[in-house]
Amino acid sequence: MKEFTATIAAISTPPGKGGVALIRVSGEDAITICSRCFAPKNKRPLTEQPARYAIYGDILHEGTVIDDGIATIFTAPASYTGEDTVEITCHGGILITQLVLESLFAAGARPASPGEFTKRAFISGKLDLTQAEAVAGLLEAESREQISLSVAQTRGVLSKEISTLYENLRHTVSAIYAKIDFPDEDLSEIGPQELYDIVQKLCDSIDELCKTYKTGRAIYEGISTVICGRPNTGKSSLYNAIAGEELAIVTDFAGTTRDLLSANIPFGRVMLRLFDTAGIRQTDEPIEKIGIERAISKISQAELILAVFDGSNPLTDEDLSLINQLKKATGKVIALVNKSDLPCLADLSLLDKTFDFVIRISCLEGRGIEDLQRCVNRLFTDEALSTRQDAIVTNARQYASLVRALDYAKGALSALSSGLAVDVACADLEGALAALAELDGRAVSEDIVNEIFSRFCVGK
Amino acid sequence: MKEFTATIAAISTPPGKGGVALIRVSGEDAITICSRCFAPKNKRPLTEQPARYAIYGDILHEGTVIDDGIATIFTAPASYTGEDTVEITCHGGILITQLVLESLFAAGARPASPGEFTKRAFISGKLDLTQAEAVAGLLEAESREQISLSVAQTRGVLSKEISTLYENLRHTVSAIYAKIDFPDEDLSEIGPQELYDIVQKLCDSIDELCKTYKTGRAIYEGISTVICGRPNTGKSSLYNAIAGEELAIVTDFAGTTRDLLSANIPFGRVMLRLFDTAGIRQTDEPIEKIGIERAISKISQAELILAVFDGSNPLTDEDLSLINQLKKATGKVIALVNKSDLPCLADLSLLDKTFDFVIRISCLEGRGIEDLQRCVNRLFTDEALSTRQDAIVTNARQYASLVRALDYAKGALSALSSGLAVDVACADLEGALAALAELDGRAVSEDIVNEIFSRFCVGK
Repeated sequence: MKEFTATIAAISTPPGKGGVALIRVSGEDAITICSRCFAPKNKRPLTEQPARYAIYGDILHEGTVIDDGIATIFTAPASYTGEDTVEITCHGGILITQLVLESLFAAGARPASPGEFTKRAFISGKLDLTQAEAVAGLLEAESREQISLSVAQTRGVLSKEISTLYENLRHTVSAIYAKIDFPDEDLSEIGPQELYDIVQKLCDSIDELCKTYKTGRAIYEGISTVICGRPNTGKSSLYNAIAGEELAIVTDFAGTTRDLLSANIPFGRVMLRLFDTAGIRQTDEPIEKIGIERAISKISQAELILAVFDGSNPLTDEDLSLINQLKKATGKVIALVNKSDLPCLADLSLLDKTFDFVIRISCLEGRGIEDLQRCVNRLFTDEALSTRQDAIVTNARQYASLVRALDYAKGALSALSSGLAVDVACADLEGALAALAELDGRAVSEDIVNEIFSRFCVGK
Repeated sequence: MKEFTATIAAISTPPGKGGVALIRVSGEDAITICSRCFAPKNKRPLTEQPARYAIYGDILHEGTVIDDGIATIFTAPASYTGEDTVEITCHGGILITQLVLESLFAAGARPASPGEFTKRAFISGKLDLTQAEAVAGLLEAESREQISLSVAQTRGVLSKEISTLYENLRHTVSAIYAKIDFPDEDLSEIGPQELYDIVQKLCDSIDELCKTYKTGRAIYEGISTVICGRPNTGKSSLYNAIAGEELAIVTDFAGTTRDLLSANIPFGRVMLRLFDTAGIRQTDEPIEKIGIERAISKISQAELILAVFDGSNPLTDEDLSLINQLKKATGKVIALVNKSDLPCLADLSLLDKTFDFVIRISCLEGRGIEDLQRCVNRLFTDEALSTRQDAIVTNARQYASLVRALDYAKGALSALSSGLAVDVACADLEGALAALAELDGRAVSEDIVNEIFSRFCVGK
């Protein structure tokens, strides 16, 4: 327990040189420790200063003034961590910030480990696990949609849903156990059919939450996407059109792209982890050859394959060979018929027959990119879900807990339908409860907690 | 003038991902602009919130909540810039911080240019120019001594000295002009001898300040220092011993170091801009040859040359050739006789005859490094000067202004001693006044001001 009351300190702003830096100190001795290194200009010690007030003063290191800055006290529980906290803003030089931190260590604080402030917020009940994960998501966010989703989750949209499921189920299970333990008491009984209906409803709710993971994952982790096609169909032009900037070099020469280019690009609601690849053809050019091998390997790993064809020319043998290859792909394939600004000479019926999705585009004129975006978003997200309001599962850990809860609940259902006693089903329902408790962290192993917070940066 | 009242905003913390970021907004509309993007949890708009108080609330972008954070209002003139200022602390993700900033721009703020917050502090009279330069020094500081010096200067130790010189001189000059303009008034006259004494005292004071630049420069900018010697005398061992860590690879093989290694290393009070070089010898190895050419070129540029000899062996022809070369060096030379842990076989009398400073060291045992440090510090600083208390000139701009003031004052002295009328000397004294005014910025061209602040980072 001592570990959680020891006072910790860290630089909470990004590493490097800036105008100002913010150092956070949290724990039961935070104010006393800071008062040893911070001398308010109004001469009253920090321990006698009001909370939440910007106090201007000198910062001391080994007794000498090394900087001046602002200290703000947040008293427990009204702080981020739920503990007494002091935030010190000082000049943002690399050495000066380090000296201020060292001074706090000398005064009794210990270095905070990655995510330890947020971990303390979790332990003191200010946040549950899914909220803490959303804080990490906010810091990592690369798209507006991810920010919107993270903000909703930090506010407990998902937590509330899980909490409701948990509480309802716990209520049911304890009612059943009460009846078993005290059969003579006048307790209302939950019959097998009623219980079946309750559990069926639970299954439906969990299942619905599970389904949101597809959307959450496309927004949070993104979709690994590869652009492929024979040389000169306009793959790099498509890559640039999706990115909205000139990332790849585009020329009229076949074989311009050889390296595997990649970028994370928000595309509508989803994030594409997009790869541009070398045009696939027979070649003896050694560098291009390596590029083509990499392209083929990427195709087999991708979740989404954007196959680009040149609509202004008849399909070539290289196109046909690629089409055959794509039939074996595990990812979703969208065929893109490029150069729609020119007369169409390609055999579209063959493409229509082979692929579920065929879209005509013109990278030159920027036409069709929005159709592609709509198609991708429909394929990888549930458009009915609102990132701002709906409970959405965003990571594999949450999803795994839900799937486990669902498995247990289904086990209870089949026990009930095969006529086993209610208390047999209850063992499964307890498993479901445990899985839900792990999901929002109300009962979770220390390993899982440590693993989650170790992914945070120091100072958060 | 509008330029200085427009409200500016910038991320003041270092760029990159961190736990929190701090965005600073300053100008007459700072509070109104922030109230459009920040919704306090207590429902009262920001414009009605108390100053210097940590206000928790939601941060909005295009009407939707993108984060929560803390806003603190500092009302003019009690702020860093002297203007109304709001500091917003938000989550430190790269995208989220950018969005918060964009939201402030949309609400009416304009992007701050580098150093603009400090420039406004200068314009509103919160800081003079030497103090602003010391703020920049604090951010850049690489040594404790530089921090100590910067802190003293931000507190106006140098400013006060310059201000006293300026005011005394201004008083003298105006008294003289008053007597010339109103000869019949009963004004006390300053006779030529009295004026001579006053100006002589001024010259002495300025001269004394000028002399502090040697120390200020050694602490602030550092001393370009090169370690040289024939192969295998222990140059890289010395480099590591001075650095206090294993920066250079050390082996028993002659010619291990070929690239020019460099590091900025605090060494006592001074900062060494230290270069390790390839051992100088005749060689046909092409890479080593380039390294040796670079070593020789560095010797001619360095302010301090640490020439390393192997005391455990008689001096070689290579040593003698280096000694001859060093006689032409413009920098100060310290001869270091290494391997003092072994019996001395080198002819120390030759070294003693040639060099002003000869120090026996053992890099292996770490012996003699402190002697070297003392010697360097005595050579490049005035040990009587205290960085904490004394006015010390730290950069070339300040020094150039002082030299100009001194030249004018000396001109006045020679006018007086050649019996010219007092008013002739006054023209020179006005020149001295202008140079002093430029030094602390009370009258300085916009170009100089802009040049100084452009070296700051954005957000300071």
